[in-house]
Amino acid sequence: MGKFKIERPVYFHSWASVVGRLEREGPLGEAFDEWDATDRFGAETWEKAEGELCHRVLGLAMEKGGIGPEEVSAVFGGDLQNQCVATAHGVLPYGIPFAGLYGACSTCTEGLLLAALTLAAVSGFPRVAAVTTSHNCAAERQFRTPLEYGGQRAPTAQWTATAGGAFVLGRVGRIRISAGMVGRMIDGGIRDAGNMGAAMAPAAADSLLRWFADGEAVSSYDAIVTGDLGREGSRHLAELLEERGLSLEGRHRDCGCLLYDENTQDAHAGASGCGCSASVLAAHFLPALQRGEMKRLLFLSTGALMSPSSVQQGENIFGVAPIIQLQIQG
Amino acid sequence: MGKFKIERPVYFHSWASVVGRLEREGPLGEAFDEWDATDRFGAETWEKAEGELCHRVLGLAMEKGGIGPEEVSAVFGGDLQNQCVATAHGVLPYGIPFAGLYGACSTCTEGLLLAALTLAAVSGFPRVAAVTTSHNCAAERQFRTPLEYGGQRAPTAQWTATAGGAFVLGRVGRIRISAGMVGRMIDGGIRDAGNMGAAMAPAAADSLLRWFADGEAVSSYDAIVTGDLGREGSRHLAELLEERGLSLEGRHRDCGCLLYDENTQDAHAGASGCGCSASVLAAHFLPALQRGEMKRLLFLSTGALMSPSSVQQGENIFGVAPIIQLQIQG
Repeated sequence: MGKFKIERPVYFHSWASVVGRLEREGPLGEAFDEWDATDRFGAETWEKAEGELCHRVLGLAMEKGGIGPEEVSAVFGGDLQNQCVATAHGVLPYGIPFAGLYGACSTCTEGLLLAALTLAAVSGFPRVAAVTTSHNCAAERQFRTPLEYGGQRAPTAQWTATAGGAFVLGRVGRIRISAGMVGRMIDGGIRDAGNMGAAMAPAAADSLLRWFADGEAVSSYDAIVTGDLGREGSRHLAELLEERGLSLEGRHRDCGCLLYDENTQDAHAGASGCGCSASVLAAHFLPALQRGEMKRLLFLSTGALMSPSSVQQGENIFGVAPIIQLQIQG
Repeated sequence: MGKFKIERPVYFHSWASVVGRLEREGPLGEAFDEWDATDRFGAETWEKAEGELCHRVLGLAMEKGGIGPEEVSAVFGGDLQNQCVATAHGVLPYGIPFAGLYGACSTCTEGLLLAALTLAAVSGFPRVAAVTTSHNCAAERQFRTPLEYGGQRAPTAQWTATAGGAFVLGRVGRIRISAGMVGRMIDGGIRDAGNMGAAMAPAAADSLLRWFADGEAVSSYDAIVTGDLGREGSRHLAELLEERGLSLEGRHRDCGCLLYDENTQDAHAGASGCGCSASVLAAHFLPALQRGEMKRLLFLSTGALMSPSSVQQGENIFGVAPIIQLQIQG
């Protein structure tokens, strides 16, 4: 059903997370490596601010790993801005060979999966990186309305995180990417750009049903982590899986539900944006694996494929959810 | 310098090209598999027309290879539309696991490179596909001005091709992808969205200089094929390489110069768009390799990384040019 082992050893070498103010004020706030209280990262536009965020988080992942850009053979990355310009601007100064991705909010897992496959296929590469960001103000202006418009948000709406995560993969380490799956696009019939959770849940369900189709036990994972279904999408995922007889046995975690406090932060159905799962993986789940509190994790960022034009032209929003399996070695 | 061998055998299983009217009327017109004289492909908007083009060309590549979508393990693809929605809409009905890419006009080579690496890394996958499209009317509306505006084009401007190419890679065949390289982004200081050739040439030069840095002979290739530098960018590439002492010895071909007739078709500096190199590879170069007229080819689609916002905000346009090496076996 599309699940594959990554036969050669591929490990996380180092990683970093950088966030904005709201993310820093949330329940995981202390865990992020850096933050900017102005969300501007020293730049004069929101679009450029995201480029700076990308630049900073990728640089920090390399710094924390004690390596320079010349020791990274390629970087996979993407963001939500049209033509992924934030990533292009963030990566350019490092001169690392670059492959741009567009997987909407699934980009973090897509990038890690392709980085792992590249490392598995190319013996001569010592390390490959993946980086993903999103910025609330750039995303709102592009996909919905500029902040100045003051548009009312629906209760199902999620808050695009101002956040980024970067990861360097290498051939030695403790946390291994040992298996993966490319996601299928699923059309759940959703046309409401204010309800991304509902658009993405059917893809997460499809990927999980394919993953567990070989009889692997849900209980063999400490957690099954989705990217940014939020509260609405997480409920929908549970219903879809229940209909098909798959229970996640209390192991489901969603980065979109973890990033903000439901009661004190006004983020409605939770966080979204491709920086959400990237920053939560880097700040929360990888450290938990590193400390040995978790041993085996399934990680699937969830993306909603649409553009403002496609929504205006009445097209459905498709979901996609690639998977990577992380586990502690030894 | 970043060049790597693809050690496991990866071959072209089948391929297809589909184009619009202007491309059909050009010098390669007879070589394309299908064309639509209206450029609409039965759809009601230009954006949806490109989605149909993608759907048709991917379907045709599978048909020509005698396989169905269930026999393709994953597809890599992208286009120029915001959030790559044309590819998403074209691929969705096949249900093939999908990884979205954004490499601007370099997407064809990026997709083939990642498809080849995936096939090399995942023993259980029989076949992986890559698909790329562009549509003149969708691209003009998005990046520059809608056609109805009747904007005047500069002599350096290129014509975004209405074209697509799809490729199925497998483990047996005659034309092998035997080596590759991920491209570095190069900032040549260009800010004019009407001169893509100048923005991309420095990246093509960088990739070729890195490729030939190990002393490999230019004469070992029958052709060194760039994606869509056009006449302006091709001249610029020759100058940049000459400065660094590398001559392509009359072997340089550019898909952007091949697609339209310089004298009878009003395409200014040539063709561009990620469908340009994809359709010319499928209709012209792969058949030449198949017929044995060529034995060894270097193929590098060239991309210009920018968005309308980044250009409006005064940012430079970066080039990128990944490479694949194609050769006849036996």
